[in-house]
Amino acid sequence: MAQASSPSQLLDPVAFAAELIRCPSVTPEEGGALDLLQARLEALGFTCTRLPFSEEGTPDVDNLYARIGTEGPNFCFAGHTDVVPVGDEAAWSADPFGGEIKDGVLFGRGATDMKSAIAAFAAAAARVLKEGAPKGSISFLITGDEEGPAVNGTQKMLDWCAAHGEVIDDCLVGEPTNPRALGDMIKIGRRGSVNGWLTAYGAQGHVAYPHLADNPVPRMAAMLSALAALKLDEGTEHFQPSNLEITTVDVGNTATNVIPAEVRAHFNIRFNDLQTAEGLEVLVRGVLDKVCDEMGGSYDLLFKKSGDAFLTAPGRLSDIVAGAVEKVTGRVPELSTSGGTSDARFIKNHARVIEFGLVSQSMHKVDEHIAVKDIEQLTDIYEAVLRSYFGT
Amino acid sequence: MAQASSPSQLLDPVAFAAELIRCPSVTPEEGGALDLLQARLEALGFTCTRLPFSEEGTPDVDNLYARIGTEGPNFCFAGHTDVVPVGDEAAWSADPFGGEIKDGVLFGRGATDMKSAIAAFAAAAARVLKEGAPKGSISFLITGDEEGPAVNGTQKMLDWCAAHGEVIDDCLVGEPTNPRALGDMIKIGRRGSVNGWLTAYGAQGHVAYPHLADNPVPRMAAMLSALAALKLDEGTEHFQPSNLEITTVDVGNTATNVIPAEVRAHFNIRFNDLQTAEGLEVLVRGVLDKVCDEMGGSYDLLFKKSGDAFLTAPGRLSDIVAGAVEKVTGRVPELSTSGGTSDARFIKNHARVIEFGLVSQSMHKVDEHIAVKDIEQLTDIYEAVLRSYFGT
Ligand SMILES: [Zn+2]
Ligand SMILES: [Zn+2]
Repeated sequence: MAQASSPSQLLDPVAFAAELIRCPSVTPEEGGALDLLQARLEALGFTCTRLPFSEEGTPDVDNLYARIGTEGPNFCFAGHTDVVPVGDEAAWSADPFGGEIKDGVLFGRGATDMKSAIAAFAAAAARVLKEGAPKGSISFLITGDEEGPAVNGTQKMLDWCAAHGEVIDDCLVGEPTNPRALGDMIKIGRRGSVNGWLTAYGAQGHVAYPHLADNPVPRMAAMLSALAALKLDEGTEHFQPSNLEITTVDVGNTATNVIPAEVRAHFNIRFNDLQTAEGLEVLVRGVLDKVCDEMGGSYDLLFKKSGDAFLTAPGRLSDIVAGAVEKVTGRVPELSTSGGTSDARFIKNHARVIEFGLVSQSMHKVDEHIAVKDIEQLTDIYEAVLRSYFGT
Repeated sequence: MAQASSPSQLLDPVAFAAELIRCPSVTPEEGGALDLLQARLEALGFTCTRLPFSEEGTPDVDNLYARIGTEGPNFCFAGHTDVVPVGDEAAWSADPFGGEIKDGVLFGRGATDMKSAIAAFAAAAARVLKEGAPKGSISFLITGDEEGPAVNGTQKMLDWCAAHGEVIDDCLVGEPTNPRALGDMIKIGRRGSVNGWLTAYGAQGHVAYPHLADNPVPRMAAMLSALAALKLDEGTEHFQPSNLEITTVDVGNTATNVIPAEVRAHFNIRFNDLQTAEGLEVLVRGVLDKVCDEMGGSYDLLFKKSGDAFLTAPGRLSDIVAGAVEKVTGRVPELSTSGGTSDARFIKNHARVIEFGLVSQSMHKVDEHIAVKDIEQLTDIYEAVLRSYFGT
């Protein structure tokens, strides 16, 4: 029989990564990337389910859930085929959708974030599956909405899984986690994030008649000073301290003799697992109320959670991934909770979740690229993770 | 002889005000208003000098100095024929340049600020001159740049006067000074005004990595709080306390996850004669330096004087004007230093100066208007001022 018809064929992770890059799947476009991945996974014996979602005010998004095996435990690889836009195309030294390899380096949008990691995990799964079905299941949870609003992607897929009895026990997110070299860092948690939009109101008037006006700017300055002075916590063993940053404050008044009626500001809080979005809102409103009690006037606050903090406490899952990393790279990875948010903020409500992928340095930049050797080593790491997880 | 050839003809102040309103002299346009005024003043025997000025970056402006008499004392009426734009023309119930009288009210742009006051003073001068030349001189200092940048107007005219030996002893500025009713208020001084443009600098970064950035917003908030908390003085017998107002603060950052590099603010200080612009700059810089000493970081401040405070202490000039007001209206006018700046801030360096004109309520608004009776009473007041000043 020809190799293509075998359910246990192998996959070249580098060639597959290049093929995925050639699919122009700029968020929210599917761009052929999910079709290509589905075809390869089906060839490996996976059962594939496409999960398109839509919601008013957001773009329609296609997603893919694939599983091989029917028993637990279900080890899931989570990731995304969508990529950020090319940016300044003229500044690229390679075709962003060419999947070119030059001097041992693969170039293209998605090379590090995160088409190559998807290819590596698919290739790792192929190697394990070639030796027979593992005691449990391997699955893929792949969205096309990670770089977009993240409304029609991972969150709705997980709801679908829950509704359809698809239990995920452990999940490895393949986002680029290494600051400098493959093996630097595993993410075992992420800080949460909330956004606050603050408006202070007063009454417009002329600077020469301040008693006829009510300037909201001193009140806003006091509120921002109070927010900036907040010491939220000291951090934990695994997390840095929670932190609030004011990103903008704006009046937009061009008249030098007019007291404005209103001033708006925005802040973002990145918080660890000592905090919750709900608790932070109470705290922030308390600070703002105190300022208005002292100074008079009123404010409006729109407070919106974009993700809770989570921690997958060091244990069997982190031991498995760290062990695989050390075995392949010789490096002992740091177990970190630093950096921005990822879709793991949704997965943590459904499964133990941990993140390990490629080197993040060129992600979202012009000339995004990754060493071919890193893709090969990542495949070895993912293979070692699966073997260790299933005891094969 | 026909009346038109007589040097001592009379002038109807209301008809003349309407004629001036019909000249569309929206700043910086002359609009025929100075030509019309010059023709009438020449008919009364005044020697007229047009003083057009220009400066790069500002519009060219025409101005008029007129004088009758060669001896001192020289009593000058100062004002402007330029008007602010019409605004929402559809909202007007009368043609803004129609000079219509409806039910005893004259409508039009400039009706209160301040074409009617010019007409009233010209008519008052005509009445006095009809009885013979006074012991001294009567003059008009009329600019077309009061509502504009005020660069090519009163200030340069006064320089021209000084250079040409034109001494002005006492000056009456005809700006609308009465909040509600004719006779309410004489302005015997004005607060000074300075503007400050403040920029705080930091280093841009991502909210998830605050240690790699330096957010300038908390520093700006602290600087603005410190400025807003400044108690400059308690005021004086003639002046309200000096006051600082922050009119805007702006970052203009639309990315909720980006720490900005820079934030800008503007403030205005209206100050009494206990302060000077130079002293205020030292004080403000001290406050800002203290914040940056405590919090780190740097700022830039552009500090610009737009006018010094001045006071024409109550005395003969205010007695003359207040006496005339009381005689005509029965009201004892308040001697005030409240409100915005006027061209008196320039005149005070050359002459004793005081301000009295019409009711300010509708100035700069849609349907600017003034009661015909107010124009007639203002003419009577100005006539009484001249008679009292010259002892005729
Ligand atoms: Zn990603
Ligand atoms: Zn005016």
